[in-house]
Amino acid sequence: MNISNKVMGRLTRYRALLTDYFPKEKTYVFSHELAAMMGLSASQVRRDLMCLGYFGVPRYGYEVVELIRHINEVLDASKLHNVAVVGAGNLGRALMTFLESRRATLKIVAAFDDDPSMASRIINGVPCHSMERVEEIVREKDIRIAILCVPGTVAQRVSDRLVKAGIKGILNFAPVPIRIPVGVALEEIDVTSSLERVAFFTTARTNTARERRPALRA
Amino acid sequence: MNISNKVMGRLTRYRALLTDYFPKEKTYVFSHELAAMMGLSASQVRRDLMCLGYFGVPRYGYEVVELIRHINEVLDASKLHNVAVVGAGNLGRALMTFLESRRATLKIVAAFDDDPSMASRIINGVPCHSMERVEEIVREKDIRIAILCVPGTVAQRVSDRLVKAGIKGILNFAPVPIRIPVGVALEEIDVTSSLERVAFFTTARTNTARERRPALRA
Repeated sequence: MNISNKVMGRLTRYRALLTDYFPKEKTYVFSHELAAMMGLSASQVRRDLMCLGYFGVPRYGYEVVELIRHINEVLDASKLHNVAVVGAGNLGRALMTFLESRRATLKIVAAFDDDPSMASRIINGVPCHSMERVEEIVREKDIRIAILCVPGTVAQRVSDRLVKAGIKGILNFAPVPIRIPVGVALEEIDVTSSLERVAFFTTARTNTARERRPALRA
Repeated sequence: MNISNKVMGRLTRYRALLTDYFPKEKTYVFSHELAAMMGLSASQVRRDLMCLGYFGVPRYGYEVVELIRHINEVLDASKLHNVAVVGAGNLGRALMTFLESRRATLKIVAAFDDDPSMASRIINGVPCHSMERVEEIVREKDIRIAILCVPGTVAQRVSDRLVKAGIKGILNFAPVPIRIPVGVALEEIDVTSSLERVAFFTTARTNTARERRPALRA
């Protein structure tokens, strides 16, 4: 299936909205309702959902349960993914709690840290190991994805090591871009940079602030 | 000054790289070096830096100190911004620690939470208040920016209230899109969605994984 990163991102958000925030009593949803919730145009929503091969019911819209099932099929074609948090500082530990059981197919099974006082601790039910054991634990627990929360100075080195150990996807929270080989998936979240952007546009008062259409509230 | 969100984002990253990761002994930096560190083309870097009105020194490149100063002038045209964290759960508290003194012009001065056991606590030196006092504290402490870490179900309601209280920029970590009026800046970070995207492309093994050019290591 050929599906772009942008469409993928929106599919995950349609699912989150339908699962967690759409009125439980409603059986059908129209593209314009999803559009309003997401701040998109209805035609954009219809184009995104077309790639699911599910076209809904004329005049009723998309059946919510069916739509979720079709999104699941695409997003979770994947079976379960085992995930490791690398760098168990404040942010790493918070993400472990925040992400816990948020999606059934993504399971945090290990954490790694250089600090000897963190290694051997249990964080939120998940064991934290010394960085020295990365290769062994990644193999043993079949970990495919790493959430990188280490300082910028060591991010590239740690990332190289993770890829060598068999990691196939990295979510990078370190405040520097990292380089990965072809065949490894990468998403980067730079919290400081995002906050600086908000601050800049707060001062600049330009019109780049996005206006969203009224959202449908559950 | 007319400067796009994308260029802004890159300027914050050039600065972070030059300040924190560039070899201290080097006085000059070439556009191709910055390009390699960022995974961009050299011409893109030159175009970005042109908007600073600083063109460097022929054959030597950009003087690092001068370049940082010019970026500072643009990014911090802003004086100091007071920031509040709204929702002092795991993620909110971790961000307070993570962002502490990361940028001199962004200062977290208050946190807010609905949970009575959180209100009146001091987190990392910053007082946490009850949501009831938002209007009063925002005015009193001249808070312009909010980092929104509340559950998706209340994100829109809390955001509306913050804007009414005088907040001019929001960094939204709640897992739903929010709608804001024109004139308010918004950045959204959806951690779960980013992790799902990594998982999807890990399975799909498409070539959308971005390959980066070798980074210049400090």
